[in-house]
Amino acid sequence: MTKLTVAVVGATGAVGREMIKVLEQRKFPVKALVPLATARKQKRKVRFRGNDLTVRATNDRAFSGVDLTLFAGGGTASQEFAWEAVRRGSLVIDNSSTFRMRPDVPLIVPEVNPDSLRLHRGLIANPNCSTIQMVVVLNPICRGYGISRVVVSTYQSVSGTGRDAIEELRRQAKALLEGRKYAPKVYPRQIAFNALPHIDVFEDNQYTKEEMKMVNETRKIFSDPRMKITATAVRVPVFVGHAESINVETVEKADADEVRKLLKKQRGVVVVDDRKPTEGDPNLRTYPLPVDAAGRDEVFVGRIREDISVENGIALWCVSDNLRKGAALNAVQIAELLF
Amino acid sequence: MTKLTVAVVGATGAVGREMIKVLEQRKFPVKALVPLATARKQKRKVRFRGNDLTVRATNDRAFSGVDLTLFAGGGTASQEFAWEAVRRGSLVIDNSSTFRMRPDVPLIVPEVNPDSLRLHRGLIANPNCSTIQMVVVLNPICRGYGISRVVVSTYQSVSGTGRDAIEELRRQAKALLEGRKYAPKVYPRQIAFNALPHIDVFEDNQYTKEEMKMVNETRKIFSDPRMKITATAVRVPVFVGHAESINVETVEKADADEVRKLLKKQRGVVVVDDRKPTEGDPNLRTYPLPVDAAGRDEVFVGRIREDISVENGIALWCVSDNLRKGAALNAVQIAELLF
Repeated sequence: MTKLTVAVVGATGAVGREMIKVLEQRKFPVKALVPLATARKQKRKVRFRGNDLTVRATNDRAFSGVDLTLFAGGGTASQEFAWEAVRRGSLVIDNSSTFRMRPDVPLIVPEVNPDSLRLHRGLIANPNCSTIQMVVVLNPICRGYGISRVVVSTYQSVSGTGRDAIEELRRQAKALLEGRKYAPKVYPRQIAFNALPHIDVFEDNQYTKEEMKMVNETRKIFSDPRMKITATAVRVPVFVGHAESINVETVEKADADEVRKLLKKQRGVVVVDDRKPTEGDPNLRTYPLPVDAAGRDEVFVGRIREDISVENGIALWCVSDNLRKGAALNAVQIAELLF
Repeated sequence: MTKLTVAVVGATGAVGREMIKVLEQRKFPVKALVPLATARKQKRKVRFRGNDLTVRATNDRAFSGVDLTLFAGGGTASQEFAWEAVRRGSLVIDNSSTFRMRPDVPLIVPEVNPDSLRLHRGLIANPNCSTIQMVVVLNPICRGYGISRVVVSTYQSVSGTGRDAIEELRRQAKALLEGRKYAPKVYPRQIAFNALPHIDVFEDNQYTKEEMKMVNETRKIFSDPRMKITATAVRVPVFVGHAESINVETVEKADADEVRKLLKKQRGVVVVDDRKPTEGDPNLRTYPLPVDAAGRDEVFVGRIREDISVENGIALWCVSDNLRKGAALNAVQIAELLF
């Protein structure tokens, strides 16, 4: 396999660091790794295969001779440099939301729509973290029964916001436990021991941008622009791992045991849904949890049951590491498809 | 107004303490307060109107001469003593789930179905905390447009489990922040920095009992035994205040502004849903939060928007203090209706 020069933009951020880790763990054929960051973060070091690499400034020239660039430096960096990187001969996988809805940019989850990749013009978009784990779980249900509507409520961890947010939760929780105050800086309101129904900015229809990403990106990934989806996105005081409570209305009747079987066969999914109550203790049941999913690659799904409020419907609960499958891992998996 | 002898069973628990506080705050006409608890907790003191009262053992004789008993001592205490208290001449308001679904026991939320009270035979049931705040918010929507289906996902605080759970979250969070482990005792798994899709025991249909309480109690309160409701109940690391993401399908078309107006007129509801984006910062929006609702009496509702996935539907987010409106306050409000 040809070895590649791989650049990571936003190499010091929560997702950038995870990308570098995933490239190493999956033995991606890296000839040279080029860690890039914004000016104020250059000269920092990142570790790759036992070496400390110095982070360099992101500028046009940085992409010369680069075969593949993973962008995880936020929307502004992508807007400024992504197409320039393509122009200079690099393939680009962009983790920001900037280009996701452009018709000439494929939006890819390898387990769901790998075929959409062939239309790319050098730049491929990585979907939103909450979208990725949802579509992986919806995929076999959609293929098996058809989906007529999805209602999803999320329980999203602070690592989705970045490293400053992780620090804010840690410090704020500590302060509150010690009876001290800790003013929010990253979030608009207190995140420790609280739940914030507000992720990203508000749109005109009163949904947040995060909620509309889940709607629009899911439609694009399933090539179904009229798919009926509604989302409520909520930040909870969890460090890593997004959870989602999903109600799916299906076109054909779906049996919970059958859905469980389909999900077990879905690549990238682990079913955690032990239905055997241990005698004497009906509480000894298994279900996916953020703390168990953190650091793992799969999307975990459980609480699979027939929805009692509709003729054809399934309710379930899924959890995934938002930095890995929700961002870094999915990006590297797209790269693996490309090369 | 005649002054009453009022007993509180479970007087040292999270809800029992709140009941005593609410009786005092609302100037309920108490002649004498009789705090009762299980054997191992008697001789403790509880404070009422500046006096320390000694907690007495719960037994049959304890209810003689008592006009009103509020039961918050768990299902076993209610099962053993509630009807005995009625037999001895006390009116009983029971916070446990034991008798809620019995046809001869009214299940009351004063803002929603006060008229159902007249059928009582001495015992009135207080609904589940998650049910109460939901029905208060659904009430004007149901009356205004009719409800064809409800999908709800909860974000429930640990105080709903009791005082031991509050302590477990506090200690576990502290330990984890200091890099130490803290084995769960109250919850089946770690609650700090996690989300547990498991409240109460599992039922045969794979819903939990907490979820089915929300379904069955809501149907009973609205006198609509076929109302279509599905719930996913999740425990989050919040001390006080339950939140709910609710999607309502309505029979008639409901406009978000109209729903906002109806909710503003609903007794017991405060709309926190400032839609005016401050220029330059679209994030300066208001919405209800558990930390703001804690210690308050009302149900707070926001994120009110037309559901984009159905013709007739409303999505919203509501928060309430689960110990107050979700338990103690609602019980005392029922008592106020009775006397």
